[in-house]
Amino acid sequence: MRETWVVGAASNRFGKMPESGREAATLVALEAIDSSGLEPKDIGYTFVANCFGIAERQAHVGPLINTGLGIPEVPSCTIESACSSSSAALHEAFVHVAGGFTDAVLVVGAEKLSHLDTLNATSYFAMGADYPFETRNGATFPGLYATLANAHQRRYGTSPEQLGAVAVKNHANAAANPHAHFQKPITMETYLRSPVIASPLRLYDCCPFSDGAAAVVVAARERLPNPPSEPLVIRASVRSGSIADMHDRSTMTGLPASRLAGEIAFKAAHVERSDIDLVEVHDCFTIAELMALEDLGFYEAGRAGRATVEGETARDGRLPVNPSGGLKAKGHPVSATGASQVVEIFEQFNGKAGGRQVKDPTLALAHNVGATGGSCSVHIFGRR
Amino acid sequence: MRETWVVGAASNRFGKMPESGREAATLVALEAIDSSGLEPKDIGYTFVANCFGIAERQAHVGPLINTGLGIPEVPSCTIESACSSSSAALHEAFVHVAGGFTDAVLVVGAEKLSHLDTLNATSYFAMGADYPFETRNGATFPGLYATLANAHQRRYGTSPEQLGAVAVKNHANAAANPHAHFQKPITMETYLRSPVIASPLRLYDCCPFSDGAAAVVVAARERLPNPPSEPLVIRASVRSGSIADMHDRSTMTGLPASRLAGEIAFKAAHVERSDIDLVEVHDCFTIAELMALEDLGFYEAGRAGRATVEGETARDGRLPVNPSGGLKAKGHPVSATGASQVVEIFEQFNGKAGGRQVKDPTLALAHNVGATGGSCSVHIFGRR
Repeated sequence: MRETWVVGAASNRFGKMPESGREAATLVALEAIDSSGLEPKDIGYTFVANCFGIAERQAHVGPLINTGLGIPEVPSCTIESACSSSSAALHEAFVHVAGGFTDAVLVVGAEKLSHLDTLNATSYFAMGADYPFETRNGATFPGLYATLANAHQRRYGTSPEQLGAVAVKNHANAAANPHAHFQKPITMETYLRSPVIASPLRLYDCCPFSDGAAAVVVAARERLPNPPSEPLVIRASVRSGSIADMHDRSTMTGLPASRLAGEIAFKAAHVERSDIDLVEVHDCFTIAELMALEDLGFYEAGRAGRATVEGETARDGRLPVNPSGGLKAKGHPVSATGASQVVEIFEQFNGKAGGRQVKDPTLALAHNVGATGGSCSVHIFGRR
Repeated sequence: MRETWVVGAASNRFGKMPESGREAATLVALEAIDSSGLEPKDIGYTFVANCFGIAERQAHVGPLINTGLGIPEVPSCTIESACSSSSAALHEAFVHVAGGFTDAVLVVGAEKLSHLDTLNATSYFAMGADYPFETRNGATFPGLYATLANAHQRRYGTSPEQLGAVAVKNHANAAANPHAHFQKPITMETYLRSPVIASPLRLYDCCPFSDGAAAVVVAARERLPNPPSEPLVIRASVRSGSIADMHDRSTMTGLPASRLAGEIAFKAAHVERSDIDLVEVHDCFTIAELMALEDLGFYEAGRAGRATVEGETARDGRLPVNPSGGLKAKGHPVSATGASQVVEIFEQFNGKAGGRQVKDPTLALAHNVGATGGSCSVHIFGRR
């Protein structure tokens, strides 16, 4: 396997995009390629994530993006794995480059749903769950994650203040992130006074619907002896699955796919949990951040909540978690989310994270979940 | 690169499926795995093609299929490249296995649209074109391919009888294919009397909307020293792209992406056109079969029509083309089509093609196009 790098990365500001998904994808792709020192003509393959292009009446987005980049002859395809689509695309890029099939690959994720009303957007999101067994019976994601939160509370006594501490931290981080949907800190009082969406989850436990686009460029080391930015070496690129339906699983207090991908990734990268300087995890709901930290082995089961309250996961804490603001506050444009986690790590490694900069990170982990954990991707990045 | 095989393949009967796309996918996947001599637990990755699961309110199909196969922990994702989705998925499987990342990969394509009315189904198909520039202005695929047919007729004098000869041949082949949507021969008179859909294309120039599912298992040679079936060696797995919109291209009498993928594939496989015993090409419309044979270099531009009339591409001709019946008569369940071309070649190589058996094939080519050729896949298969 060839040593494989992330050599470029870019994101737009998440929130509400005036442009279409394919236009936003093309623009961030150009910016990511530019940040790598490569040119579009150097790209050998394009993987797009764009789950809900259908809502814009547009499938087959890859050739449109490549045409926009001036490289129409380059092959492309769209990769879907619900909310983990662009990390699944990153894995394909890794396999192509590490395996020697392509020297440089573009990964770009984009989503636009803001032109739909909220109910319609919820329906699109819910297609990631199991239609006959979950969605058709009314179980959309707030309800499914509320079920996990209830189980976690009953087993470990996870308090509203522990969930709230995730929200307060991530909103504080997002306030320093120009890519973030929400750039305003919130207080614990605001959190505790916010309306219940699906008990015990309140409004501020939930990530927003966001439009957005993010792109990364993956390349072989020998292709770029002197990249203009500090590249990330991909130390591990791992994907996993689990029983799709929550009601068929043996646990409701964590996601088996996260545990599996995490274990394999740490072994593959030959690093310990304590070596990691910075983590971006899939906090579609606050409970998901706590479960992720426990499933990945950073904390024992039931201990991540207290650690969050005590500031361990703040950006100046022992283990900065979601310095970007996470899905919770940076926003969650489904197909852009996995790529945007890598954008954050790229900016952190390049000292370009401004007010949310973590001190000298050398090892980072990105964790991206599809739906309620039917799919999971874990990537570990180091310095070259 | 490791020598990489197609070791198993299966298809259901195309047409109208009572079951959902994910159910049909699970069933053919089991059958394909069974035909390989492997068991589900041997599968290391699953690539699904299912462009329009959204029409069943279901995305993120991989974990559902893997759960049904009893291998929920296995990673999966869905690959979309319009009508070339499952050949794009096959390419990813090839890269994973040839690169040594996974020993055995499942590729399964499924599509169900028959529960929609025709207008709605047409709208779904049309999402593969460029929405703002093509679809929104009324250009759906029959119109776009009619434009290509008009250009081809004007330049080369391609006659209705030449287009009709493709339809008559492919319906005759499909009549001997138990997987085919249409299993009834048609005459040239029937063809010539059929109504015009988009001039010059008549009803019998157009492939049908079909439901269907097809699966193939790709594995490393060393993984299966004694497979129960005669495997196909993948001699070339190539994808390409072209300018997405037809109106921006310099040619309308062929598809640049087909030419490019064909050239690269023949070089990679170290074979000549004249070595190929059997071809499955993307005949979504009759004109597409003629263009494919010309773009791939089997015939000079403008010469495939006459050759078809003269029987060269019949299943007992010099170069059997679409012995399965092709998209035209076997049917075109969008995401299953690329995989089903490989099913045909697998059955042909295993002497299981019944009344449509080609004599002792040793080299075969599959050609699958996304939309009007924004994407193309070409695979060349040999005997081990």
